[in-house]
Amino acid sequence: MDKRKVEVCFNPENLEYYDISNSHVVVVDILRATSAICAAFANGARSIIPIPTIEEARLAKEKGYMVAAERDGKTLDFADFGNSPFNFTADRIAGKDIAYSTTNGTKAIAKASDGLSVAIGSFPNLGAVAKWVKLKETGNVMILCAGWKGRFCLEDALFAGALAENVLSDSRFATKSDSVQASLQFWSLAKADVFSYLEQVAQRHRLKKLGLDDVLEYCFTANSTDKVPELVNGKLMVQ
Amino acid sequence: MDKRKVEVCFNPENLEYYDISNSHVVVVDILRATSAICAAFANGARSIIPIPTIEEARLAKEKGYMVAAERDGKTLDFADFGNSPFNFTADRIAGKDIAYSTTNGTKAIAKASDGLSVAIGSFPNLGAVAKWVKLKETGNVMILCAGWKGRFCLEDALFAGALAENVLSDSRFATKSDSVQASLQFWSLAKADVFSYLEQVAQRHRLKKLGLDDVLEYCFTANSTDKVPELVNGKLMVQ
Repeated sequence: MDKRKVEVCFNPENLEYYDISNSHVVVVDILRATSAICAAFANGARSIIPIPTIEEARLAKEKGYMVAAERDGKTLDFADFGNSPFNFTADRIAGKDIAYSTTNGTKAIAKASDGLSVAIGSFPNLGAVAKWVKLKETGNVMILCAGWKGRFCLEDALFAGALAENVLSDSRFATKSDSVQASLQFWSLAKADVFSYLEQVAQRHRLKKLGLDDVLEYCFTANSTDKVPELVNGKLMVQ
Repeated sequence: MDKRKVEVCFNPENLEYYDISNSHVVVVDILRATSAICAAFANGARSIIPIPTIEEARLAKEKGYMVAAERDGKTLDFADFGNSPFNFTADRIAGKDIAYSTTNGTKAIAKASDGLSVAIGSFPNLGAVAKWVKLKETGNVMILCAGWKGRFCLEDALFAGALAENVLSDSRFATKSDSVQASLQFWSLAKADVFSYLEQVAQRHRLKKLGLDDVLEYCFTANSTDKVPELVNGKLMVQ
């Protein structure tokens, strides 16, 4: 039997060049959307509704939803909060439905929905999302990086490498993809000391300038939660 | 004075997310278009006219041009030859104007033309194209990888790393780009033994299947020519 293929796409803008109709898609936006989504479910959120545009996020607020929304790291004025994982505390969001719109992450989730199934990946749920992939009996794997406004992001590719390494250690999976090889290389260079490696990541410095880099330890520490948010009928939920 | 910025774009499809109006652009399609173009000028070609579509290439043939044209590595039936650097021999092409159309390379050249100036880069002219960049008195640098049908290609990014390393060793240049950092990492992992590194490159195996991998030694050996093909009024020429 042919092995199940592992693929990485560095930007949602390039996803159209891949056939994902037979792939389980893991969406990755490490700084900070998918890390924050994992934090929300770790703290008991009921669902998260990904919202592509600012206008739709505003409409959700008017309809009474709790709204998390940012652009370029800054919370939008009408939103309840932005996309720091630390915003999604249990006292605030447990049992709630949250409308969520971010610069790059929600666009990636929307594009991913052509796949067989869609899950949210981040270092906090690395082991859990790898297990989610491996528990599926068939289908390829697409790790979809959110990137940054159509450009390559090292931190997303780094996570793609960590996840690909885990999945490829299972002999049912294989890859012939240059973007997977590249991601594995980033992870091999970084894994002994991730925080030193991050010094070269542009988004790390963007967040520092905005005073938002307190999230680094949370965003790059693996396996603090076993929750895997999945997209079901346009909503992210955990089973 | 602000330092001149070095940037890498992994695919022509993503170039629209960068402002290249103040950038000198180096187009890179290592296997095999830009390596072949450098071979052509090393062997005395007068000009190369990049042709985006198969239809236009056919038209050029009807108009009497010598035509080099391939898709997916295979020479098109109406063309004089494909895009192996070994096709562009002096006895065949010295003093000639050649119409040239390839899967990814000519698309990249077309997109690059929004920049301040456009040159062709490959390992055969690595030192020369780095010098070309540094001789420009102002302007940023965009290294534009042709990639493969909208997807990431490791061999193009590898060259981008080699070129970026050379240019950034000049203190007038700097970068904050994740794609530059990634490219530098590939090059740092590869440079001690490029041919071993290539074993993980997908296009290397695509070419092998087609019996076209005889070009590897030429395509990954640096500095066999000092010619830098530049785009002038839609034609590639050397000064």
